[in-house]
Amino acid sequence: MPAPADLLSYIDKNADAFIKRLADAVAIPSISGDASHRKDVFAMADWLNAQLKQLGVDTKLVDLGRHTMDGEDLPLPPAILGRIGNDSNKKTVLIYGHFDVQPANKSDGWDTEPFTLTINEATGQLIGRGSTDDKGPILGWLNVLQYHHEKNIPLPVNIVFCFEGMEESGSEGLDELVVRESKKGGYFDGVDCVCISDNYWLNTRTPALTYGLRGLSYYKVTVAGPARDLHSGVFGRTVHEPMTDLISLLGTLVTPQGDILIKGVDEMVDAADADERQHCTNTVPRAIYEGLDYNIADVEAAARASIALSADKVSVLMGRMRSPSLSIHGIEGAFSTAGAKTVIPAKVSGKFSIRLVPPQTPDNVDPLVIAHLEEAFAKLQSKNKLTVENLHGGKPWLADHRHWNFEAAKKATKAIYGQDPDLTREGGSIPVTLTFAESLGVNVLLLPMGRGDDGAHSTNEKLDKSNFLEGSKLLGTYLYELAAIQK
Amino acid sequence: MPAPADLLSYIDKNADAFIKRLADAVAIPSISGDASHRKDVFAMADWLNAQLKQLGVDTKLVDLGRHTMDGEDLPLPPAILGRIGNDSNKKTVLIYGHFDVQPANKSDGWDTEPFTLTINEATGQLIGRGSTDDKGPILGWLNVLQYHHEKNIPLPVNIVFCFEGMEESGSEGLDELVVRESKKGGYFDGVDCVCISDNYWLNTRTPALTYGLRGLSYYKVTVAGPARDLHSGVFGRTVHEPMTDLISLLGTLVTPQGDILIKGVDEMVDAADADERQHCTNTVPRAIYEGLDYNIADVEAAARASIALSADKVSVLMGRMRSPSLSIHGIEGAFSTAGAKTVIPAKVSGKFSIRLVPPQTPDNVDPLVIAHLEEAFAKLQSKNKLTVENLHGGKPWLADHRHWNFEAAKKATKAIYGQDPDLTREGGSIPVTLTFAESLGVNVLLLPMGRGDDGAHSTNEKLDKSNFLEGSKLLGTYLYELAAIQK
Repeated sequence: MPAPADLLSYIDKNADAFIKRLADAVAIPSISGDASHRKDVFAMADWLNAQLKQLGVDTKLVDLGRHTMDGEDLPLPPAILGRIGNDSNKKTVLIYGHFDVQPANKSDGWDTEPFTLTINEATGQLIGRGSTDDKGPILGWLNVLQYHHEKNIPLPVNIVFCFEGMEESGSEGLDELVVRESKKGGYFDGVDCVCISDNYWLNTRTPALTYGLRGLSYYKVTVAGPARDLHSGVFGRTVHEPMTDLISLLGTLVTPQGDILIKGVDEMVDAADADERQHCTNTVPRAIYEGLDYNIADVEAAARASIALSADKVSVLMGRMRSPSLSIHGIEGAFSTAGAKTVIPAKVSGKFSIRLVPPQTPDNVDPLVIAHLEEAFAKLQSKNKLTVENLHGGKPWLADHRHWNFEAAKKATKAIYGQDPDLTREGGSIPVTLTFAESLGVNVLLLPMGRGDDGAHSTNEKLDKSNFLEGSKLLGTYLYELAAIQK
Repeated sequence: MPAPADLLSYIDKNADAFIKRLADAVAIPSISGDASHRKDVFAMADWLNAQLKQLGVDTKLVDLGRHTMDGEDLPLPPAILGRIGNDSNKKTVLIYGHFDVQPANKSDGWDTEPFTLTINEATGQLIGRGSTDDKGPILGWLNVLQYHHEKNIPLPVNIVFCFEGMEESGSEGLDELVVRESKKGGYFDGVDCVCISDNYWLNTRTPALTYGLRGLSYYKVTVAGPARDLHSGVFGRTVHEPMTDLISLLGTLVTPQGDILIKGVDEMVDAADADERQHCTNTVPRAIYEGLDYNIADVEAAARASIALSADKVSVLMGRMRSPSLSIHGIEGAFSTAGAKTVIPAKVSGKFSIRLVPPQTPDNVDPLVIAHLEEAFAKLQSKNKLTVENLHGGKPWLADHRHWNFEAAKKATKAIYGQDPDLTREGGSIPVTLTFAESLGVNVLLLPMGRGDDGAHSTNEKLDKSNFLEGSKLLGTYLYELAAIQK
């Protein structure tokens, strides 16, 4: 059941008004990570709530309590729960999005004012903080709602909305809400599937559906020696230096080619092949990635340097999507500024993290990491002290992309873009995805609106006008395909 | 020729007045590294100049020009040149000291106000910034001058003074002055030897003379990859990560036991043994260090941790005094603060330095370091870019401790302290030492006043009252022994 042709032409006809509404949303600097902008996150919640009500959604703001940020006690922005339609003959889809944004200052290197949506007519880009992450996609849903409201046409499915204002700052308070409302009698009870539009195409050309996210396990490995920093002239070659030990330890983790040297970590993933085949495809893993519209030039354009690990697109894609990765982020406690300081730092902490794929979890990877570091440290025969901490972690997520939720989205994509979507897994994490999947026990679909070069979290964040409009049509069409498809 | 007994008792009798004068000097916060205190460095120069004039020294302030610090254009504090005595039948000794100090705030962890000299009657300590580094030693010379001036007794030697106010900030402008004034007809022309009192005993028990300082070669090794920082979720295991490469490189430099792995660096020093024997002693190097009053507990007390590289005092002392050392100071450009950031830093610079001993110089060590890093980087087969820079360096210094300048100091030490001094080499650098040695072509003696635990540059800097008074006697006696000794 395709969407009514009228919906599609309505979106084209109302393009200017929709872009104007996106400009209104972008103008509210709802930066969740900056205490001084907390009032703007509240203002953004009020703005979105008013929009939803006006379009016939029954909403409520949920107080998520307070938290401490940068030493300041602050109220958490409310979550917005909404419902439209309550027809037991229709499927119910839960739609998630977030109305907070990353920080942005023109002085960071923006070409335009970040909180003024700027339309570049030449490139067709809508430039501004939050344009693609995640105000554009949220407003895509509003565009669809507006058509049905204005034309007084019932939606093809029941929709439950869950919008939050702390996604860019760890989604504080949301997990508890989702778990609570997923229980019998809760707000989300009866939801058949979930759709989240908060990620990106693999490239700038081909729409995508996303069925996997990597998890994360973040480590802090500390080597402590003297009680305070020492002078390298006085103490050089008389004591065990914590930096020397730490550098040795960090050097045992990963090769310059990305292979993880912690025994058992890479090995664990081979066992997952069978699982991936069973759930997602009957081909060997390589073949999945062979079909994606992607090439080495894409990754090197994104990194703006010719530094891909391989000239083979499949191994690069598998490295990002279905392999764990280990990145060393930095060292706390050492000399880190410009200039030349001859210090022997007393206590240094290396920070590294492993992106996890099934069947890896922080719980089964932690012991391997700790054993590896303790063994490597013992070999150094240092008198310094070692501590290993897991700072935080999250499990990976993998959905069945042959589920009807995905099939509906495939049909919608074909209808709007005239091509099959890339079926992708993301290298990063959107932790709430797993929370929805585990709490509700239903299929979760990631249905991106923007392109791979949108620059979410970066300067000059943009959403292409065509992605905003075609993406709105895609979201609407998905609802119709969802209604039509056999469960 | 020992000093007149009257000089020694004069110093004891005037102890309170001398300590009062030290308190006056400490009260001027002449912090050369803080632009807001530059006026205090000038005030300190005026104070010291007035003291010298009052005690019969013919002085002049030398304008050293201007410099930029923290983006501010500032006048450099003047050097003070002074002369007392011009008898061609007497030896002429050049005495160097500095009247600027390190920064200090009570909030850094001081128990007392840093710029108020506090006398702890129980411990006999004179506590305050600059007490031992280097106002105490300078005032030791003033104490000696005062005796001769007041009693109208001619000094046994001619003295040329060179005091500066930028020692704690790189001695800007001084090298040029020393080189210029060392030429024929210059202020320092005719100087027979140099004495610098600006370092410390090896321990808290035994007076020392110092005949060697290590040099330094400071390196910045940069690995650059992507044009900007990347997200480890999106890019982990797709690109060559600069941090992985850099950690690998830094891991090839030195063992946790302090052995330098850069081919040729440690090896170069064995060749120096013969030289050391020839100039300084006819025993094997080990025996030199065997005789020093030092034990492992001293180094571990100073580091406040049981982290000495060896239980053998000789190898620890040799590690500090006659071996090169390599310390890794930190990384610029990586994540360095608290918390957990999942960044792949785009460009990271490791900072490390090698303390040099003869015959090592930055010039002969640089090529070994560069070749080592380039070879190690090539092995990584990374597509990132490597750059190696030498940020700054200085040659090591080694004097003949059998020279009459040292013999005079040995006799003076025996006379005042009743024991032979430890003959030490320092692990750190005092660059002006080498400048004097090379420009004047005469023997330079380091004659420390303070103890190894004085905490120069640290909180609660102190000079023991006994070191101030006996040290003043030592300086005075040294001048008499210098006059008497056969050139």
